[in-house]
Amino acid sequence: MATHQVLINGQWRDSDSTGTFQANDPRAATAIPEDYPISSWAECEAALDSAVVAFEKLRQMPRENIADFLEKYADRIDARSEEIRTLAHQETALPLDTRLVGELGRTSGQLRQAAAATRSASWCMPVIDSATNIRSCYAAIGPVAVFGPNNFPLAFGSISGGDFAAAIAAGNPVIGKANSMHPGTTRLLAEEAQIAADETKMPAGTVQMIYRIAHADGEKLARDPRLAAIGYTGSRHAGLVLKQAADSVGKPIYLELSSVNPIVVLPGALDERCEEIADELTGSCLMGSGQFCTNPGMIVVQAGEKADQFIASIASRFSGAPVGTLFSQSGQTGLENAVDQLKSAGAEQVCGGTPGGGEGYSYANTVLKVSGDAFVTNPEQLQTEAFGASTLVVVADSIGQINEVLGQLEGNLTGCIYSAQDGSDDPHYDEIVPNLRQRVGRLLNDKMPTGVAVSPAMNHGGPFPATGHPGFTAVGAPGSLLRFSMLQCFDDIRPHRLPDLLKNKNPGNVWRNIDGQWTQADVEAPVKD
Amino acid sequence: MATHQVLINGQWRDSDSTGTFQANDPRAATAIPEDYPISSWAECEAALDSAVVAFEKLRQMPRENIADFLEKYADRIDARSEEIRTLAHQETALPLDTRLVGELGRTSGQLRQAAAATRSASWCMPVIDSATNIRSCYAAIGPVAVFGPNNFPLAFGSISGGDFAAAIAAGNPVIGKANSMHPGTTRLLAEEAQIAADETKMPAGTVQMIYRIAHADGEKLARDPRLAAIGYTGSRHAGLVLKQAADSVGKPIYLELSSVNPIVVLPGALDERCEEIADELTGSCLMGSGQFCTNPGMIVVQAGEKADQFIASIASRFSGAPVGTLFSQSGQTGLENAVDQLKSAGAEQVCGGTPGGGEGYSYANTVLKVSGDAFVTNPEQLQTEAFGASTLVVVADSIGQINEVLGQLEGNLTGCIYSAQDGSDDPHYDEIVPNLRQRVGRLLNDKMPTGVAVSPAMNHGGPFPATGHPGFTAVGAPGSLLRFSMLQCFDDIRPHRLPDLLKNKNPGNVWRNIDGQWTQADVEAPVKD
Repeated sequence: MATHQVLINGQWRDSDSTGTFQANDPRAATAIPEDYPISSWAECEAALDSAVVAFEKLRQMPRENIADFLEKYADRIDARSEEIRTLAHQETALPLDTRLVGELGRTSGQLRQAAAATRSASWCMPVIDSATNIRSCYAAIGPVAVFGPNNFPLAFGSISGGDFAAAIAAGNPVIGKANSMHPGTTRLLAEEAQIAADETKMPAGTVQMIYRIAHADGEKLARDPRLAAIGYTGSRHAGLVLKQAADSVGKPIYLELSSVNPIVVLPGALDERCEEIADELTGSCLMGSGQFCTNPGMIVVQAGEKADQFIASIASRFSGAPVGTLFSQSGQTGLENAVDQLKSAGAEQVCGGTPGGGEGYSYANTVLKVSGDAFVTNPEQLQTEAFGASTLVVVADSIGQINEVLGQLEGNLTGCIYSAQDGSDDPHYDEIVPNLRQRVGRLLNDKMPTGVAVSPAMNHGGPFPATGHPGFTAVGAPGSLLRFSMLQCFDDIRPHRLPDLLKNKNPGNVWRNIDGQWTQADVEAPVKD
Repeated sequence: MATHQVLINGQWRDSDSTGTFQANDPRAATAIPEDYPISSWAECEAALDSAVVAFEKLRQMPRENIADFLEKYADRIDARSEEIRTLAHQETALPLDTRLVGELGRTSGQLRQAAAATRSASWCMPVIDSATNIRSCYAAIGPVAVFGPNNFPLAFGSISGGDFAAAIAAGNPVIGKANSMHPGTTRLLAEEAQIAADETKMPAGTVQMIYRIAHADGEKLARDPRLAAIGYTGSRHAGLVLKQAADSVGKPIYLELSSVNPIVVLPGALDERCEEIADELTGSCLMGSGQFCTNPGMIVVQAGEKADQFIASIASRFSGAPVGTLFSQSGQTGLENAVDQLKSAGAEQVCGGTPGGGEGYSYANTVLKVSGDAFVTNPEQLQTEAFGASTLVVVADSIGQINEVLGQLEGNLTGCIYSAQDGSDDPHYDEIVPNLRQRVGRLLNDKMPTGVAVSPAMNHGGPFPATGHPGFTAVGAPGSLLRFSMLQCFDDIRPHRLPDLLKNKNPGNVWRNIDGQWTQADVEAPVKD
């Protein structure tokens, strides 16, 4: 069978490859016999050159065209749903008719939300100071490389997911590097993207896709001046290598790396609804075999009878639930190593802790526990992310120690506090929340963090190492678009040369901040258009 | 004479110093006999610990208190104007009654604008999605270190300038490291800051000031987990060292490093008003002895008779103008080296090019020129920033080559195009502006870039290496505050626990984005407060 082609400069073409690779069927734990190319640096250069030209053209296009493309692409994904889901199911083992239906709907929905953000242009946040005639807005930054993760082949996919949608919606061409665990799924999506791009007359090179490159070429790409920004979701190690390369040339790189998503269950909540919370927690932890970025990997409780009951309840639910399939052998090994590391740092195994037990790549649903004393003595190692259906319960001896534990946390995507409905936990809540608040992007009450709503108010982000910058969200239009933009100021620019967004006349219900007030009106201005 | 004290944890105290240094009087080219301490790492730690405690308290304070502090401090600076300016004049040689009057007024004005941004809270950009009950806003990030530059002892000073004002206004404590060239000025400002902080009951450690630390301790500070963010303005070399340290731990660092601020004068503009532009340019280039971050260091013209006349005009004005005093011996040496480097890359000296000629540290007003061919062959070296009264004219052979020259530019703070009033240059403008636009933070028409208005629409920023991130401005409230913030999302948080800004009831004319619309109204919501 021929090696699959790459999408460069608007064309599917044979890869100038340095080798090939195959994806795996996780349930069968065998390779899928389709060859995907490892692109050479010359191929990266071709993509970069094409993206530069595409960007020049995109900058001249009305933003409506970009919105049309995104919507057309969303429609095409919906229309090819079954084929895309079937291949994604084969490559990832994610359930065909539940999870992947939801994820596909989320994916096309995100693309449509991004299109709406493009149309309304409100993400550009135009600011006009009429007294000085200085005007500014956020604008496209240039070609963006997107490295998608293994765990959301569609909704975070490098050619279909949140980073892709945000980068395109902000007016940038995208070079997507498929995740090696689902190259076929990415290929189908890229096919639809290119057809939609052709149909909506987008410049060649607006959407490009390669499957894999050598690590050294990844770093070279990150440093290349033709590339303006990077979106990366994946392992911490590889992400930090790319970050270092991008940082060295002052290039914005947005990362989503790892997060244990602490959940504090305060004593009153345990008294009130121990079993109910154990249910919720189990559902959240085991969903997608625990392979979620917002998977609750750490639960903090105060020692006591109820805490013991809670741990026993979780363990019994974990043990009784079917063991899911993991994405890959390396995922299974990674989970194994992480659990071993937690144990070697003093965590005690309550249940699970063994590889296998499910179809294909798998690892037993695992509950570990550790004392608050042990945690604060060795906080770094005990925050190791165990990516999969494994969670660590930290049993603190007091509310004060819960606070100490939280004070040792690295940056996380989410943090959650369960408290009694009757308000009896409120003083404890007030004591611990400041510490948690500064360490997480999204704070929740009485709710598990999995299930990241695509909302303009969402922050799917957080302090390092959850992400690379605590000021940006990866989910939710219009906010996510700002990552792939630069701030552009226009100082005394002749009126006819201003971008439409900044002209006196409002180009169509765009929200603009004029002299300190948000308005959809025109500028009542001394300057003539 | 005793070594001056440092300001730690709300107290002036003897430094735990590892040595001392003295500032210079640039006009006399001699040391000023006042000893300032080089703080030990233990002293940095004391400041960090105090800042952490101060931040916990600041987070509980009503934002009005912070605004009160900033305003009180602004008043105190105005009241002590003469003494502050006199010392600044001695330490920097900046004119006492013109430039420093303007700079002091700008400084207190900036502090008041920052206070207004704090009061209105609109910089927090609250976003409320009432359907999902997800709410978010920008919030204080934590202790911030500010490293101020040599060239604006007040308006960019580490304890009084834009970064300081923005960091405090966003709710963060500041550890200011004085610039070694004006420690005395910084001391006077810090005195007023602390008195204002005491008067307004700010937590001890809200404002702290040290004079100098070892380079290794600077890097250690940048990596320290107690520090949340950094603002740095100064030399590229030192800035990149700090950046690497901060990047290694994923900490936001905002830098302003270097910029040649290209100015293109199109042929029609030269035909129309060659002498007028030469006048403007000379004024802009020689202002403050050329020691401005937005100093025009590179002029691009198309070859021809008018271009020759323009160069001759500039040269005659530069030669006829008095030679200003530079901040320091190292400034003089740096300028000397930069001019030499430009020459060794092929630039031809039109006038100047020799050290001395003014009072104290000085260097002749210098005009260099180089062909467009030479520039595009060696663009990196020919973009060397010559910090002082020196400018390089690039003489391109065509508009196409002007565009090629612009295409080789690194990121800059500003870029400016002068064009004919009669529209005859407009096709040229359209050809070159896309290339320039993406490479600069602020684009200007027919106007020199010096004089950075403190406006909400200002972008004093730009792509690397002008700054470290193209999405942020260092000047202009409320935008500059966003640098020292993190995005905080509240997902289904119980209503009484929400920050006031995100409660259903608007806390007082705050602009909030509710369900996609900017409004100062309350949330009409299903959720009860």
